[in-house]
Amino acid sequence: MTPENDSPETGPDELARHAVKMAKKKAARDKIMAGKSGEKGLIIVHTGSGKGKSSAGFGMILRCIAHQMPCAVVQFIKGAWDTGERRLLTTHFGDLCQFHAMGEGFTWETQDRERDIAAAVAGWEKAKELIRDPEIRLVLLDEINIALRYGYLDVEEVLAFLRDERPERTHVVLTGRNAAEALIEAADLVTEMGQVKHPFRAGIKGQPGVEF
Amino acid sequence: MTPENDSPETGPDELARHAVKMAKKKAARDKIMAGKSGEKGLIIVHTGSGKGKSSAGFGMILRCIAHQMPCAVVQFIKGAWDTGERRLLTTHFGDLCQFHAMGEGFTWETQDRERDIAAAVAGWEKAKELIRDPEIRLVLLDEINIALRYGYLDVEEVLAFLRDERPERTHVVLTGRNAAEALIEAADLVTEMGQVKHPFRAGIKGQPGVEF
Repeated sequence: MTPENDSPETGPDELARHAVKMAKKKAARDKIMAGKSGEKGLIIVHTGSGKGKSSAGFGMILRCIAHQMPCAVVQFIKGAWDTGERRLLTTHFGDLCQFHAMGEGFTWETQDRERDIAAAVAGWEKAKELIRDPEIRLVLLDEINIALRYGYLDVEEVLAFLRDERPERTHVVLTGRNAAEALIEAADLVTEMGQVKHPFRAGIKGQPGVEF
Repeated sequence: MTPENDSPETGPDELARHAVKMAKKKAARDKIMAGKSGEKGLIIVHTGSGKGKSSAGFGMILRCIAHQMPCAVVQFIKGAWDTGERRLLTTHFGDLCQFHAMGEGFTWETQDRERDIAAAVAGWEKAKELIRDPEIRLVLLDEINIALRYGYLDVEEVLAFLRDERPERTHVVLTGRNAAEALIEAADLVTEMGQVKHPFRAGIKGQPGVEF
């Protein structure tokens, strides 16, 4: 324990010392970061059976908006409860964030495979258009993993597009459980959201702010 | 394949059939949900060494705002790069979402344990005030798990408060790696964000929209 640490932070001396310390800390951190090779668009995957895959994607959208970075969302599977964020984002940040809901409803069981495929393909066409636009810095492909898993979209085609046609600085976030092995292989950043506990099991229903 | 599935969805008949089908689907889903026991404030934990713990928390904040549900954030560990969301949320949604940054900077190494403890305790005092307010429906305690892990806060005291003084409908989200066993035990919903791949390992530095 140094005397510096004991003193209350009220006087100008203490504030100055604190500023010096913080500056040193920042310099150390900047040095670490300078060793990294710089900005590069990432392929980011949120998968696993736990919660938070889409929420974390929307959290990244919020960060982009905070940084005035144009971004976009394509929802491949639209549940009836997904309208809240959409309304909020388009109302407040429509100039920075595009929002396209392409799914026709959550595919609990494949009631109409052809329609699901058509919706997935339309979503992917829109996604390609958004990704090609170099102004858009992050594109969230929400629940696309479901469409890939069911074979509605071809994973090799998607990966080839991301590799060959994605602008250098564009991040693409792909969410949904059961991410394809080839996608995980190709991705730069993969998080597996594992379910440790879920309240549905305890008889609690989905609630606003948590599930939708 | 039924004839219904083959027909293009343009005419009024097809639209009507589609509406009936969707209504049936919704009724089935509503029936499932009616079996659940109703609204209840949840203790939600995002832990694990992967990314997305805080982002998913902020995604839930976005959902609350979308539902006009008052909510609040207490950041226990404030990195210099966490200011984007704060500015955005307070500027646009200050009437619905309170934001309190209590940490003094990310504790890479404990340079000043007493100051860290003081900041954690101040954060927890603010958190208690916010949780006690029945108007606030969700409180995000961002990175509190770090403060609990380091012993800056007493986990039993935190759990006792959440059990005894939290209003019935209030959700509390606790994020950060290494969540205490007792917290996981007490929680209703726990997601473990596992790191499968991280671009820092490949020499890519933190980038706006992704890391901050």
